[in-house]
Amino acid sequence: MTKAFIRTQKEIPQGAEIPSHILMIRAGLIRKLAAGAYTYLPLGLRILQKVEAIIREEMNSTGALEVLLPAIQPAELWEQSGRMAVLGEDMVSFVDRHGKKTVLGPTHEEVITDLVAGEVKSYKQLPVILYQIQTKFRDEIRPRFGVIRSREFIMKDAYSFDKDEKGLEESYKKMYDAYCRIFERCGLDYIAVEADPGIMGGNVSHEFMVPSPNGEDIIAICRKCGYAASLPAMECMFAPVTSNQKPETRKLERLMEVATPGVSTIDKVSNLLKRSPQELVKTLIYKADGKPVAILLRGDHDLNETKVKKLLSCDVLETGDADLILKLTGAPVGFTGPIGLKNVAIIADNSTRGLVNFVVGANKKDAHLLSANFERDFKVDKWGDVRVATNEDPCPKCGAKIEIEHAIEVGHTFKLGAKYSKPLGAKFLDENGKEKSCIMGCYGIGVNRIIAACIEKSNDKDGIIWPMSLAPYHVLILPLNTAHKESMDIAEKLYKELLGLNIEVLLDDRPESAGIKFKDADLIGIPIQVVIGEKNLSKGKIELKTRKDKKTELLTPQEVTDRIKAITKLN
Amino acid sequence: MTKAFIRTQKEIPQGAEIPSHILMIRAGLIRKLAAGAYTYLPLGLRILQKVEAIIREEMNSTGALEVLLPAIQPAELWEQSGRMAVLGEDMVSFVDRHGKKTVLGPTHEEVITDLVAGEVKSYKQLPVILYQIQTKFRDEIRPRFGVIRSREFIMKDAYSFDKDEKGLEESYKKMYDAYCRIFERCGLDYIAVEADPGIMGGNVSHEFMVPSPNGEDIIAICRKCGYAASLPAMECMFAPVTSNQKPETRKLERLMEVATPGVSTIDKVSNLLKRSPQELVKTLIYKADGKPVAILLRGDHDLNETKVKKLLSCDVLETGDADLILKLTGAPVGFTGPIGLKNVAIIADNSTRGLVNFVVGANKKDAHLLSANFERDFKVDKWGDVRVATNEDPCPKCGAKIEIEHAIEVGHTFKLGAKYSKPLGAKFLDENGKEKSCIMGCYGIGVNRIIAACIEKSNDKDGIIWPMSLAPYHVLILPLNTAHKESMDIAEKLYKELLGLNIEVLLDDRPESAGIKFKDADLIGIPIQVVIGEKNLSKGKIELKTRKDKKTELLTPQEVTDRIKAITKLN
Repeated sequence: MTKAFIRTQKEIPQGAEIPSHILMIRAGLIRKLAAGAYTYLPLGLRILQKVEAIIREEMNSTGALEVLLPAIQPAELWEQSGRMAVLGEDMVSFVDRHGKKTVLGPTHEEVITDLVAGEVKSYKQLPVILYQIQTKFRDEIRPRFGVIRSREFIMKDAYSFDKDEKGLEESYKKMYDAYCRIFERCGLDYIAVEADPGIMGGNVSHEFMVPSPNGEDIIAICRKCGYAASLPAMECMFAPVTSNQKPETRKLERLMEVATPGVSTIDKVSNLLKRSPQELVKTLIYKADGKPVAILLRGDHDLNETKVKKLLSCDVLETGDADLILKLTGAPVGFTGPIGLKNVAIIADNSTRGLVNFVVGANKKDAHLLSANFERDFKVDKWGDVRVATNEDPCPKCGAKIEIEHAIEVGHTFKLGAKYSKPLGAKFLDENGKEKSCIMGCYGIGVNRIIAACIEKSNDKDGIIWPMSLAPYHVLILPLNTAHKESMDIAEKLYKELLGLNIEVLLDDRPESAGIKFKDADLIGIPIQVVIGEKNLSKGKIELKTRKDKKTELLTPQEVTDRIKAITKLN
Repeated sequence: MTKAFIRTQKEIPQGAEIPSHILMIRAGLIRKLAAGAYTYLPLGLRILQKVEAIIREEMNSTGALEVLLPAIQPAELWEQSGRMAVLGEDMVSFVDRHGKKTVLGPTHEEVITDLVAGEVKSYKQLPVILYQIQTKFRDEIRPRFGVIRSREFIMKDAYSFDKDEKGLEESYKKMYDAYCRIFERCGLDYIAVEADPGIMGGNVSHEFMVPSPNGEDIIAICRKCGYAASLPAMECMFAPVTSNQKPETRKLERLMEVATPGVSTIDKVSNLLKRSPQELVKTLIYKADGKPVAILLRGDHDLNETKVKKLLSCDVLETGDADLILKLTGAPVGFTGPIGLKNVAIIADNSTRGLVNFVVGANKKDAHLLSANFERDFKVDKWGDVRVATNEDPCPKCGAKIEIEHAIEVGHTFKLGAKYSKPLGAKFLDENGKEKSCIMGCYGIGVNRIIAACIEKSNDKDGIIWPMSLAPYHVLILPLNTAHKESMDIAEKLYKELLGLNIEVLLDDRPESAGIKFKDADLIGIPIQVVIGEKNLSKGKIELKTRKDKKTELLTPQEVTDRIKAITKLN
């Protein structure tokens, strides 16, 4: 330990909010260099390399082949795939000294597809799965939670190329199963959920989530039928409001303008007018592939942009800015409503269907309208499911109650189809000499996140509790008094013996107090602690403690070796 | 092989000039994505990972600890160390979305020193050597020679921190010795030469060079005493010209202006005036720490900027631009001379000492002066060794003849002293409680370059010849007719047997002709080939061929296994 550059600290580091972030710094695994950029110290790097080794083993066992692609990528490839605008400011880019626009890859679909376009000519060369473990870059607007959301991170990204959908199905299953094995071996309680493919494109995708109160992602789980989805991907069942309302409450009232000076948010309007947010309908202005649309949602709901894109079959969806809103409505932001809007398609979420006498913006500064009604006051061009589900929505599979939980995303798999192979020309000749586009899948794992997710789940007030598979060392030997020759002799003998058995062992040879040694041992979280104290030693015994349950046993040195062999073999 | 994504090609790739570059692409180790950015295909990555494993083993055996530092670095650190201006356009930099200037590390002295400044407080924590194997970025003005000079490359960089010069001496020797072992194990005929520390700073440095006609670096070697230096670091012994001239040739002649319209380079002036370049003295205008200086060199010599900096004890040396030259001399570039220059120090190289009646620029457009002479016509403020040595210079150690060779730099070690620890605050309290700066060394290896250097040295007309240590596989099994059941049975049996012996083996199961298989085998360069042909097999024999010497033996299957075991064990 005196030679291992292990640097623990007592203080909770500034800006660290969640246990994994705090403990990774306190236990001396990482140090912050800049926002979203962390150094791995020797102890942390050992863990990172263990995760990488597990990933490599499981990837290789599927027949996937490891490659290494450059981080530097020509911007043209992104123009070709059409993702330059989509990624936008999230991408790190620079103009090189010859004036060429260059990006630092946040992902490698473009590069790998370009590579395969040059190498694969015939169906005989398919299927092929290529993967890499490599550093990615993202200019995160708000890097946070340590290595969970950083600007520089390590990703295992894999890409499958098949000749048809059936082949993709097989490759996808291979990767899906390998992911399950990887997360299992890393000791994570993961759950695979249906997900929104987002900027990757394609139709089917799964996210591998580790439920955690500190996760940034939200998932919906049905305990009854097993349905699980990321919240943005969960379908909302259509249930008209009318079904549980009495006819007399559905009488249309007169449309009426009310003054709402400076009151423009749902909460404030709701307060002022004494109507619940469910009785308000908000109107959002967007541009779908450049054309303005107005989208109506109940006041208590959030828009799901992916659902809008799907409903409208559009590629780019942008929020309308203040200028556009003023032009369309004649009013500033906050007073938009559907009544009287011209030259703009009106889209409404299913959940507004059946509402009567609701509140909308008046398209006039400082004014809203009471008792607006569909058909009588305005027409909807298209209805659909365009909102984010809530915990009041039933399971779309079985109708039972859904549970909403926070989670950390550690992996994501996508069926891409020909989204990249077509524009980037990854084609092959099939059995009949016909040219076809490769059918692709892509598969990502956040390598650093596995460490953080593991700690989020596995820690106590004293520190980290490592599973054997990721532990930086299997055993920590603690001679309490390094000045006591017999203690140190026993410690060093055991140290060498364990090394000889290929058991990874760390010796706390620091001339520190027993208290400091115990505290650091629990903080770092090595699974097995061997405590060598003078008193026990005088009776021929040393103590073996398991970090997980803090159980201790007094054993002879030989018994300690045997116990360690047994425990490390089991894990 | 049908599952290994091995893609050889016959054609010499466009833009590839040297054997290693050509063969790395032809054998399917790498592919170009963009200028200076290469993808490692599965076969190439296996080699890269072997190099990395050797480096890791040897680094770890010295007690150095592996870390991983971010590629993203805040520009402020480089301002603090004063290297922002020095690296200049060679560094990739970008402004992040929050407006912060950020660089992509071409090296990590600043970051590691900043890290250690935060972690090391006492002499008890020293010495420590930290290293990483990590991707670096350089905006090369002319990326070339494949992975030898690229914009993205993998470096093993190590940094030592000691409490004094004696400690640095020990750390430096540890690293130097480890470097020798690494290059030896990689099969390189390397030579360690005294080097110019350049932009790293510090006094002592060594380059590890692999002599090769295609190397970009030039080294000077004395076969008599063993002296070896990179050419820029070689000292030029002072030998006045007068020593071998007769007194009558030293009579001073009258200074005379001659018209040299549009003739401004040494070669052209030499031709026009019928004087050899040795009889010309060129005058170069530089700015040393902002102040203009004129530097005189013999026409056939090149300036060595590092020597100038050392002679003048200046930090920044810049070439004077046309404006400055016009301002100082009243003439455009190409006609500068020392006579009549005002407000500028005149520095002259030792080799001009003793020259008489030489040609200089007239500080007037389209004119030169014949028969210029020191003292009579102008005064020199400082003499010194400021030129690059040539093969006419004797060994500075023993005076014998020097040989000049091209070489590829694969490693570089530096004694840095307190160059970085001082400005970046890496201090510690010594035994007496006194605050001191850490004494640093830094040590780099170009990981990708090792592969290229190995190929440059070890290839023939048919392809690469791998040493066992770096070979992507140890053995290649070639069943010549994959449709012949007995051949394939023997091949697969041997394949499994060797795998069981932990021998890395590749099976060419492609239904290709024997000719294509032989060609690819020699191109890829796996050390041992096992050829399984129907004719030999009918006599119970298979052929073992060693790639290096192309020797073949006809052996029984059992003998083949035994020979392979013997060969792979020896290497």
